Amino acid sequence: MPDSWLDLDPDAQFGPATLPYGVFSTASDPGPRVGVAIGEHVLDLGGTARALGAPFADTVAGPGLDALLAAGRPVWDQVRTALTAWLTDPVHADAVRPHLVDRSSVRLHLPFTVADYVDFYASEHHATNVGRIFRPDQEPLTPNWKHLPIGYHGRSGTIVVSGTDIVRPTGQRKPPTEPAPVFGPSVRLDIEAEVGFVVGTPSPMGESVPVDSFADHVFGVFLLNDWSSRDLQAWEYVPLGPFLGKSFATSVSPWVVPVAALEAARVEQPAQDPEPLPYLRGTRPWGLDLRLEVRLNGHVVSNPPFDQMYWTAAQQLAHMTVNGASLRTGDVFASGTVSGPEPDQRGSLLELTWSGKEPLRLPDGTERAFLEDGDEVVITATAPGPGGTVVHFGEVAGRILPAR
Amino acid sequence: MPDSWLDLDPDAQFGPATLPYGVFSTASDPGPRVGVAIGEHVLDLGGTARALGAPFADTVAGPGLDALLAAGRPVWDQVRTALTAWLTDPVHADAVRPHLVDRSSVRLHLPFTVADYVDFYASEHHATNVGRIFRPDQEPLTPNWKHLPIGYHGRSGTIVVSGTDIVRPTGQRKPPTEPAPVFGPSVRLDIEAEVGFVVGTPSPMGESVPVDSFADHVFGVFLLNDWSSRDLQAWEYVPLGPFLGKSFATSVSPWVVPVAALEAARVEQPAQDPEPLPYLRGTRPWGLDLRLEVRLNGHVVSNPPFDQMYWTAAQQLAHMTVNGASLRTGDVFASGTVSGPEPDQRGSLLELTWSGKEPLRLPDGTERAFLEDGDEVVITATAPGPGGTVVHFGEVAGRILPAR
Repeated sequence: MPDSWLDLDPDAQFGPATLPYGVFSTASDPGPRVGVAIGEHVLDLGGTARALGAPFADTVAGPGLDALLAAGRPVWDQVRTALTAWLTDPVHADAVRPHLVDRSSVRLHLPFTVADYVDFYASEHHATNVGRIFRPDQEPLTPNWKHLPIGYHGRSGTIVVSGTDIVRPTGQRKPPTEPAPVFGPSVRLDIEAEVGFVVGTPSPMGESVPVDSFADHVFGVFLLNDWSSRDLQAWEYVPLGPFLGKSFATSVSPWVVPVAALEAARVEQPAQDPEPLPYLRGTRPWGLDLRLEVRLNGHVVSNPPFDQMYWTAAQQLAHMTVNGASLRTGDVFASGTVSGPEPDQRGSLLELTWSGKEPLRLPDGTERAFLEDGDEVVITATAPGPGGTVVHFGEVAGRILPAR
Repeated sequence: MPDSWLDLDPDAQFGPATLPYGVFSTASDPGPRVGVAIGEHVLDLGGTARALGAPFADTVAGPGLDALLAAGRPVWDQVRTALTAWLTDPVHADAVRPHLVDRSSVRLHLPFTVADYVDFYASEHHATNVGRIFRPDQEPLTPNWKHLPIGYHGRSGTIVVSGTDIVRPTGQRKPPTEPAPVFGPSVRLDIEAEVGFVVGTPSPMGESVPVDSFADHVFGVFLLNDWSSRDLQAWEYVPLGPFLGKSFATSVSPWVVPVAALEAARVEQPAQDPEPLPYLRGTRPWGLDLRLEVRLNGHVVSNPPFDQMYWTAAQQLAHMTVNGASLRTGDVFASGTVSGPEPDQRGSLLELTWSGKEPLRLPDGTERAFLEDGDEVVITATAPGPGGTVVHFGEVAGRILPAR
């Protein structure tokens, strides 16, 4: 990976090996447009492509990533190749420099139109912990868990970009001590640290997408916080699954890291036993060595390791379409909570505090079982890039507002 | 309700009390556009509104209903008032007649862009039957069932218009006699006869929508067949709910009946015991006296009564938003399978054949436990209209193609 002609801090986020896509606006130009993060800058991609006469200029000229997502892998490769040249070959410096904006000055937006949203449940450690907590009298993993990646549809309309405040949800919960459900603000508000994937290339109804076609359909990767109300969820989720306990908000990081930036992060996933059915087997590994960090009010409370996920995103995509369900540009699917084997690798407060029984003691002297009003959660991640570089995912942040 | 100046067969569908909206095209003019069904005709609404200089002409000029849905109830009322005048007052006959198209000659399209899709589970009879079949060792209704309308998110991207062929889904199922799941085409393919609702007026994130605001947010009503693969569903649905067993296809009827057409169909819902929490109570009834009919290969196999649903659509809307989840224009929610107390009022083959153990004997001499390739299912419905008229919902039809 050549260096950039930009004077980049080597420890800063978003070196030339990442080149994530986002949508930004500025105070002086409030129209959302496509940008690429490079060091402390955002490159106005639409403006650069137009000025340099790139063949894909129209595809990146819109107010969001939708057209680029729909354009398919050959165009994704073409844009990334051009971006790499523009930002590393000094011959382009004079032409490109006018299209750089100070990253600290931009407002970031939801980068694409979300079609369907599917949330998986792919960490064996998370599913085992949750099973022990929610169903203490049963086997923690259901009999199907190691045969298929369990997933369900979430609410697309409440996916919001990092930085959006989260209003504490209200609803029904049934404390074990009460004879009937009570109504009011959730008292067990939680996070779920996840990794999200966005589909670019659609697939027709009636056809399935093989595991090995993952990179032809999935455009990029981002971080996701699937805010969860554990009290609403516990009362409602049998028999048809989580609904209001999840549907009030899901936050995503604003920078979409292209799948092409993650070649050096690909690792073998954990061994699968029993061997999955043939439609869930691929020829190349799609484990991804992302290291997540979860901060609560500035204090690191967890470091979930994504390489420990039992099911890969490629397996999830194949499973999601094996019944002939079509894919649309903008479909989002997420890993489910990323939890590792160690107590400080758990991706939810439910697990970190063992359902509130073992509150976290934060360095500022406060304790947390679940989230309190005013709390802020920030999730970040890194992955190995080429030649010892680091791929940064930016952050997904959100602060809790009191119930209305 | 005045009669139309059109020479309508009084027994025909779509008299002047219904005026449902759809999107149609013709062989000579293949561009989709907004239409209104009246007797054996379709009125080109965009063309009529433009020609007559209606103030809402731009709102109905597009290729779908999205702009009309987003326009809100005052505009919905304005359009319906104009339509009623145009089609019943002979003074408009000469101006309107050129915009009528023979209904048998049109192609009908999915009438709006679907945002999120939520499926409820609101028939006590259906939930009880399913509980007995799927969980014979437990109480058929879960403890939460009479406290809240159980629902979950479905796949928006596979909602298709009536007449779309349905490819038999493939996937994992685990027959009780097998030690591990097997892979292949579903062998327990089913229907669910439902009533669907589409949201027009959105609501902001963080706010709830009261029961009594139903008609300010919901634009119209249609029929829905939530195709279901019982074998895929039974194996996958614990603990996070149905996923691939439902996501391959959901069919909807092409004509959206405005909520305003259903005033005469409003009835008290069945008594609710225990009394629901205050946020689920309204001041006016939202039970709806729709009578559904399910035909399999031309033979009537069920007549589900919608007035027997335990939870109303207004309660579902209030529940769906009580946690602050926003509504978007185009959000669809459906009732869940409509089943009445009698065996011939059940809205799924799962119930009609008691999980396949009591196959249906059709008048043509064939038997059906579940759907076979080539089978066609047609669901229709009617409701009382003003002055003894009948509101027709048209039909949702689909035929099963073999697995690929």
